[in-house]
Amino acid sequence: MNEHIAFDGRRLRLLDQRVLPRHVAHVTCETASDAATAIRDMVVRGAPAIGVTAAYGMALDALRGADLDDAARVLVAARPTAVNLAWAVERMRALPREAIPDAARALHADDVALNRRLGEHGAALLPRGARVYTHCNAGALATGGYGTALGVVRAAWSAGKLVRVYAGETRPYLQGARLTAWECQQEGIPCTLVADVAAATVLSSGRVEAVIVGADRVAANGDVANKVGTFGLAVLAARFGVPFYVAVPRSTLDPACPDGASIPIEERDAAEVRGHGEVVWAADVDVFNPAFDVTPAGLVTAWITEDGPWTPT
Amino acid sequence: MNEHIAFDGRRLRLLDQRVLPRHVAHVTCETASDAATAIRDMVVRGAPAIGVTAAYGMALDALRGADLDDAARVLVAARPTAVNLAWAVERMRALPREAIPDAARALHADDVALNRRLGEHGAALLPRGARVYTHCNAGALATGGYGTALGVVRAAWSAGKLVRVYAGETRPYLQGARLTAWECQQEGIPCTLVADVAAATVLSSGRVEAVIVGADRVAANGDVANKVGTFGLAVLAARFGVPFYVAVPRSTLDPACPDGASIPIEERDAAEVRGHGEVVWAADVDVFNPAFDVTPAGLVTAWITEDGPWTPT
Repeated sequence: MNEHIAFDGRRLRLLDQRVLPRHVAHVTCETASDAATAIRDMVVRGAPAIGVTAAYGMALDALRGADLDDAARVLVAARPTAVNLAWAVERMRALPREAIPDAARALHADDVALNRRLGEHGAALLPRGARVYTHCNAGALATGGYGTALGVVRAAWSAGKLVRVYAGETRPYLQGARLTAWECQQEGIPCTLVADVAAATVLSSGRVEAVIVGADRVAANGDVANKVGTFGLAVLAARFGVPFYVAVPRSTLDPACPDGASIPIEERDAAEVRGHGEVVWAADVDVFNPAFDVTPAGLVTAWITEDGPWTPT
Repeated sequence: MNEHIAFDGRRLRLLDQRVLPRHVAHVTCETASDAATAIRDMVVRGAPAIGVTAAYGMALDALRGADLDDAARVLVAARPTAVNLAWAVERMRALPREAIPDAARALHADDVALNRRLGEHGAALLPRGARVYTHCNAGALATGGYGTALGVVRAAWSAGKLVRVYAGETRPYLQGARLTAWECQQEGIPCTLVADVAAATVLSSGRVEAVIVGADRVAANGDVANKVGTFGLAVLAARFGVPFYVAVPRSTLDPACPDGASIPIEERDAAEVRGHGEVVWAADVDVFNPAFDVTPAGLVTAWITEDGPWTPT
């Protein structure tokens, strides 16, 4: 699974998450601009995975002697919501050119290692026999490897504490149906796919002991920007007394951002909602397609980082 | 639009709602069993439309001299949740054979007329300049014509009180994207399509003044069975102080049903969630696919019938 982002010292090879699981295809990047395009077009998605890809994008331009200010600019502009993007680019930009490739590799390895620690901390919060609901894909594919929310699932599964994952399909991009269900299948973790609209039925009927999601950016006050649908899920979890956990590497915390209202929310193309892939079922209809929403800190039971629970300032 | 259910005295012609709006195709029924199959396979859907279709199904078997107890049995078994189905069949079964065809026509005409009255009552509850959110399709296609929730929208639009409809796409069957958006386009009513997961963003941001949905069955205590996703939407509406209206013909009220726990909730095929139409994006994944959910009466601001607001007993 680590191989979804592979850097060979000259080129960056990305597993194309747009066509999974039906097709296993790859996109090759030779420049920071290529990496930015892959991020913008969602070849790779998920805040930590975007951060790792951007670090390698800086490495590509460092190696070929290109202007690194230009590289940083084009990468940071690729998507607005995930804070890991700017965080990774800034870390690389602060280094001497020749140090960047190894630093990008280290950032990638660190991400996998910290996800494992985060997973252990999260699994400790779950009861034995836990069933959890998750939204979108905060798995190996969304990170350098292992995953944040799905990292907790993996750790709990390994420890024999978890018995089932409910995956919300996560329209419009179907990260839950295409990526989370697929990751669970690869690992043999029992997974039940539901339409997002079934969340109230699942959460109100005692079918799950917890909701666990990832994050694209967490403000200093604890407000959480994550895939659109997270906010509604948090409202349901609060109403039905289901703990709502956010699995979040420290690189996704944004101390410079006071609260959720300061987080830019990307709106994406209408075509994503008018159909899926080649199939269009609602042509020419006006569409509102926010890619993310903001869950107020008050709805979050705990923020789980690689260092354990985090407390908003 | 009335022509989506057309009875010529010998055959029943149904607009095939499974393939709208990409294809305009029809299914012809010659027996009650044909009509039951069309209901089960969702050629026609929506509680009042199912009732009208079932009445015509009884008429078909009455005209050809078939056993009417058998006809009633096969029709009632077609789908479990909508109460209009049994209500319409029982009304026809109680009549002499020769009276059934005209009675079915009258039931159809009554449905259109009562939807218009319901629409007026509902429109009166909306403020001038209203923007409303709706889920699934409770439109002309879901009824004999005109619609219940969309009947309120039509009446408010005609009265110049309504400026926009937000349509939740309503996975997995996409009745919002395929049918509600299409009906609004036909009438020139401004309509914005959103993924269901965007509801929290829409409702929390002051974008709508009301949520209006239809119903498949309303229990004596006011609990509402409707398309899955309605319950979650009602929880959000309550949290964000948005009025939540249920547009419900009296034929959808079930006094014999004490509360929502007594309403059978149909589960449909996993294939609906694993993809859409010919496209499969999550093969071989376990699926939980309830077609309906139950919204507790406490979350409903008002139940609007053809006789005005209704109060649970």
